[in-house]
Amino acid sequence: MHKIALVGAGRIGRIHAANAASHPQLTLSHVVDPIAANAADVAASYGAQVSTLEAVLADKSVTGVVVASSTDTHLDYCIQAHKVGKAIFCEKPIDMDLNRARAASGTLAGARLFLGFNRRFDPNFQALKIKLEARTVGKLETLHIISNDPSPPPVSYVKVSGGLFKDMAIHDFDMARWLLGEEPSEVFAWGSCLVDPEIAKAGDIDTARAILKTPSGRMCVIANSRRSGFGYDQRIEAFGSAGMIHADNVVKSTVQVWTETGAQADQFQNFFLDRYADAYRAEMAHFAVMLTSAAKPDIGYADGVAALALAEAAAKSLQTGQTVKL
Amino acid sequence: MHKIALVGAGRIGRIHAANAASHPQLTLSHVVDPIAANAADVAASYGAQVSTLEAVLADKSVTGVVVASSTDTHLDYCIQAHKVGKAIFCEKPIDMDLNRARAASGTLAGARLFLGFNRRFDPNFQALKIKLEARTVGKLETLHIISNDPSPPPVSYVKVSGGLFKDMAIHDFDMARWLLGEEPSEVFAWGSCLVDPEIAKAGDIDTARAILKTPSGRMCVIANSRRSGFGYDQRIEAFGSAGMIHADNVVKSTVQVWTETGAQADQFQNFFLDRYADAYRAEMAHFAVMLTSAAKPDIGYADGVAALALAEAAAKSLQTGQTVKL
Amino acid sequence: MHKIALVGAGRIGRIHAANAASHPQLTLSHVVDPIAANAADVAASYGAQVSTLEAVLADKSVTGVVVASSTDTHLDYCIQAHKVGKAIFCEKPIDMDLNRARAASGTLAGARLFLGFNRRFDPNFQALKIKLEARTVGKLETLHIISNDPSPPPVSYVKVSGGLFKDMAIHDFDMARWLLGEEPSEVFAWGSCLVDPEIAKAGDIDTARAILKTPSGRMCVIANSRRSGFGYDQRIEAFGSAGMIHADNVVKSTVQVWTETGAQADQFQNFFLDRYADAYRAEMAHFAVMLTSAAKPDIGYADGVAALALAEAAAKSLQTGQTVKL
Amino acid sequence: MHKIALVGAGRIGRIHAANAASHPQLTLSHVVDPIAANAADVAASYGAQVSTLEAVLADKSVTGVVVASSTDTHLDYCIQAHKVGKAIFCEKPIDMDLNRARAASGTLAGARLFLGFNRRFDPNFQALKIKLEARTVGKLETLHIISNDPSPPPVSYVKVSGGLFKDMAIHDFDMARWLLGEEPSEVFAWGSCLVDPEIAKAGDIDTARAILKTPSGRMCVIANSRRSGFGYDQRIEAFGSAGMIHADNVVKSTVQVWTETGAQADQFQNFFLDRYADAYRAEMAHFAVMLTSAAKPDIGYADGVAALALAEAAAKSLQTGQTVKL
Repeated sequence: MHKIALVGAGRIGRIHAANAASHPQLTLSHVVDPIAANAADVAASYGAQVSTLEAVLADKSVTGVVVASSTDTHLDYCIQAHKVGKAIFCEKPIDMDLNRARAASGTLAGARLFLGFNRRFDPNFQALKIKLEARTVGKLETLHIISNDPSPPPVSYVKVSGGLFKDMAIHDFDMARWLLGEEPSEVFAWGSCLVDPEIAKAGDIDTARAILKTPSGRMCVIANSRRSGFGYDQRIEAFGSAGMIHADNVVKSTVQVWTETGAQADQFQNFFLDRYADAYRAEMAHFAVMLTSAAKPDIGYADGVAALALAEAAAKSLQTGQTVKL
Repeated sequence: MHKIALVGAGRIGRIHAANAASHPQLTLSHVVDPIAANAADVAASYGAQVSTLEAVLADKSVTGVVVASSTDTHLDYCIQAHKVGKAIFCEKPIDMDLNRARAASGTLAGARLFLGFNRRFDPNFQALKIKLEARTVGKLETLHIISNDPSPPPVSYVKVSGGLFKDMAIHDFDMARWLLGEEPSEVFAWGSCLVDPEIAKAGDIDTARAILKTPSGRMCVIANSRRSGFGYDQRIEAFGSAGMIHADNVVKSTVQVWTETGAQADQFQNFFLDRYADAYRAEMAHFAVMLTSAAKPDIGYADGVAALALAEAAAKSLQTGQTVKL
Repeated sequence: MHKIALVGAGRIGRIHAANAASHPQLTLSHVVDPIAANAADVAASYGAQVSTLEAVLADKSVTGVVVASSTDTHLDYCIQAHKVGKAIFCEKPIDMDLNRARAASGTLAGARLFLGFNRRFDPNFQALKIKLEARTVGKLETLHIISNDPSPPPVSYVKVSGGLFKDMAIHDFDMARWLLGEEPSEVFAWGSCLVDPEIAKAGDIDTARAILKTPSGRMCVIANSRRSGFGYDQRIEAFGSAGMIHADNVVKSTVQVWTETGAQADQFQNFFLDRYADAYRAEMAHFAVMLTSAAKPDIGYADGVAALALAEAAAKSLQTGQTVKL
Repeated sequence: MHKIALVGAGRIGRIHAANAASHPQLTLSHVVDPIAANAADVAASYGAQVSTLEAVLADKSVTGVVVASSTDTHLDYCIQAHKVGKAIFCEKPIDMDLNRARAASGTLAGARLFLGFNRRFDPNFQALKIKLEARTVGKLETLHIISNDPSPPPVSYVKVSGGLFKDMAIHDFDMARWLLGEEPSEVFAWGSCLVDPEIAKAGDIDTARAILKTPSGRMCVIANSRRSGFGYDQRIEAFGSAGMIHADNVVKSTVQVWTETGAQADQFQNFFLDRYADAYRAEMAHFAVMLTSAAKPDIGYADGVAALALAEAAAKSLQTGQTVKL
């Protein structure tokens, strides 16, 4: 059994805590959080101890650290954990600032650091990728990534979020890199504030369209809105030379009701805690494999930097009205 | 151009009139109906003349007769038309009485008589049959035929309808024969009156389940209700040794509305005039082929008798509570 | 934490072991199996001890017993566990013999015995039932239960299975009772051997159609085959006075591949371990609620007897060719 | 009956000929084509006479002219027909050159000219528009228009086509204008040659992504490829403040085949002659309404100019790599 410390016992930290605790090869041993009640609550649920980062780093029996603290602490905690030889499972994004993130690349290049872009572990997107790589539809030409949240976050959150591209589309930039088979070399982005005028006042957009282009001419459209009106809208269409692969939204059940108004399917899963529950479990299983073998992480530090670079490029394109080369 | 006479200018007759008139090889020349206004209306729409059965039979330029009059006249008119050498397109059922129908078998055996079981011409059921015969799912084992009307007819109609099995399920018995690849040898049927108690008072049922069995053990369930609550429910599932072929209902459009309550498809087509519009056109095209070539009808008199025999067997099973051998 | 003993460490027992072990309020403490290696293997996986039935019954710290042993032992073990006051989670069927099962009704009437008809805990069928009870489609009139296995079991299994109706359709009879809102009062069944002639030689059928009827005239068709050709086929259609509720099969992912041959969905889940994984977890959660509260089981001993009575009636109908009253 | 003259008896002209001939209020009386055999063939099929443009214009009994000749003749023929007071049904596009088209705006402003953007008459897109205007999903925010041909045309065609945006996306620009509820004010476009390198050699692209933006911030993505690999891909997604309306592709039948590889739907309709057969009929019906009443065309000359302006803007954006204001 590998001992895991959780740093950050908020919403996402609690999911990782539950998955670590129920994994047959992992034990949740330490919980760290600046809010004492959070740490105490999570620790009590899984028989772990409330601790501090210093204590975790000093405890040689702890082999894995899950960094689920606020984004501005990610880089610092990762570097500290890496220096004492811990394996790290860090939540995305790696940082809000591309220059800072790039500056740490040297230090973290060799880290056993798994960056938690959860969508790569979604069974539906994995099925799409498997079929894509098996050339089921020939050679990939274009992608359409649809990623709409069910409803906008509070404006207070938007103000500190880093903006739609870094906060929300960062996942989609990672998916694009994962699927395109080539690094995007140019970005164009447009955005509007159509959902909530307070978001515009906060200097952000709530609706965006970005296009990525690769050297060979592949294109990827990323469509984002802070509000769908029908739950979590997470779809991908991958067009190849011999057809298209489509990963659709997930419904709550297979039940349909047929009445005079037509066939009504069940609701779509509402948000990420539901849609990506399996993905979070699979992430922890992947971390366990890293701990129990020499396996490298499927997603590393460089992936975090690359996604951030795309997000900054999109933001710059939005600001300037010009395409941005990477 | 072949001249066609329409005998019976009611709802279904008007459909055949329109299809004959718009067919490039047919002309609607005569319209006969006991209600003068009906005949006049249809004749005027297509530049035909109001006529009588006698005149139609005597007119050698008329090569095809469409019999869409009331069911009790079908046999008589078919025999008369056959005797003067006309090709006949007769609406189903051939008659309400199995003994009478069988008695006419000798006379009509050689007739160029096409019996209008429209569902055999539905593009969806035809696609199912083509795949079935291509052994796409191996060897057929069982069928499930679902045939629910959107809403019950007036009780006045039910009283003279001949009962659910002869009036409504007759189509399904024909579909079963068409698809099973073997003549059913035994029937069991149960029925209830769940939709409208007036139908029970009229001595009929409005909800039925029949099972047909063939000598080799294939089984076919036929499910009927006089009311679906969601439009015309016309589906077939054919289970084979290597899978299943499913023909689904037809929607008014491909539009879906995704809202907080889930994905809502468009309404199903409401009733036979919509669902089988293409089938009626294809029936007339088939009749044109009979007229312009030596082609035999896809559905002949014997098919009408066989479907009627199954309907009577089901009615007898319902009455006796026993299985009925054919 | 409630201590749970597992009696029977075969395929289904292992699922219950895993679910008990990962449930936050349960601990798997004892494992009993006539095959020592089975017991040892499961016990080791979850930190439980290998034990005997006698020891389990004698250990007052064990509050719940999961009976997942061979069917012929169910009744005996349930009675023994009940006598020492244990709460019981017993796999279906309660027994193969209706007379024996009825004879034990007095003894087990008051038992805290949860009978594991897993399909009642499937999220899709639960969604169907919730909508049915909410009168989303008005008053229930008819049911269609489709339950086809992916491929037939070995004939050696068929020979000791008790026959298709007790072995396979028993689930469907329970679903019918659960959904019909009335006890079925009459049964008719037909069967064939179309999948594997060896099954016929063993005196059984592999393809069946049964119809149940209730006093008010509701009807339920149950369609079974030992082989679907496309995975596990577990669907229900519930027709009401104002529409229909449909619970469909579950696909492995939402991915579709669109090529020249049309849109191809992902495979259906292949068999019960996949399709009902959530249901098994929910069963164990229900058992935990029974242990931690005064809650009665959702499915009790009487339900097991009633389903068995329907299975025997269907088998009798098949044998006699007559409808059978209950 | 209104007499209709067809000018241009090629592929699309023949469709209009058939629809005019079968319309109850229209007669096809004249057929004009530079290739004598084409004109003769169509005329013979519908009992019309082979004629010349001059004769058609001089014949006062002809009230409607269908212009289905080569694109470079559209403007000239429309102007001539308008001058002698004919109602005109002109195929898209109005012209290849925006300046020429604008120059004719004064002359044709008052013409009874119906421009055949067929997709506006597709029942699926019409159902989408009706629901959009009924505010079924609240206020429109973004559109996604997918329009992929089944396979690329010959390079010889590409060379004279005017380029992807004018030849293919022109329909999509019209759909965007029809649905957006606001005139687009800015365009960005990217394109690649991924399907056939000969198309690049001919100076064109075969894969494109365009984004339109309106003054209020609505955005519309148009996705085009000359080759889908799965038939005609004609879909629209309209995202509103309260949900999304989706118009999907049309399948050849509702049949699905369920086998070990999953549920396989029937093929999508392969190309425009199938997908838009109903739309072409509805166009002719609309023209008949114009002829028999004072009704104005649903799509007029100005719509043709506006779509062309968007196509030119997209082409310019592609060329310059800049956004283009309208």
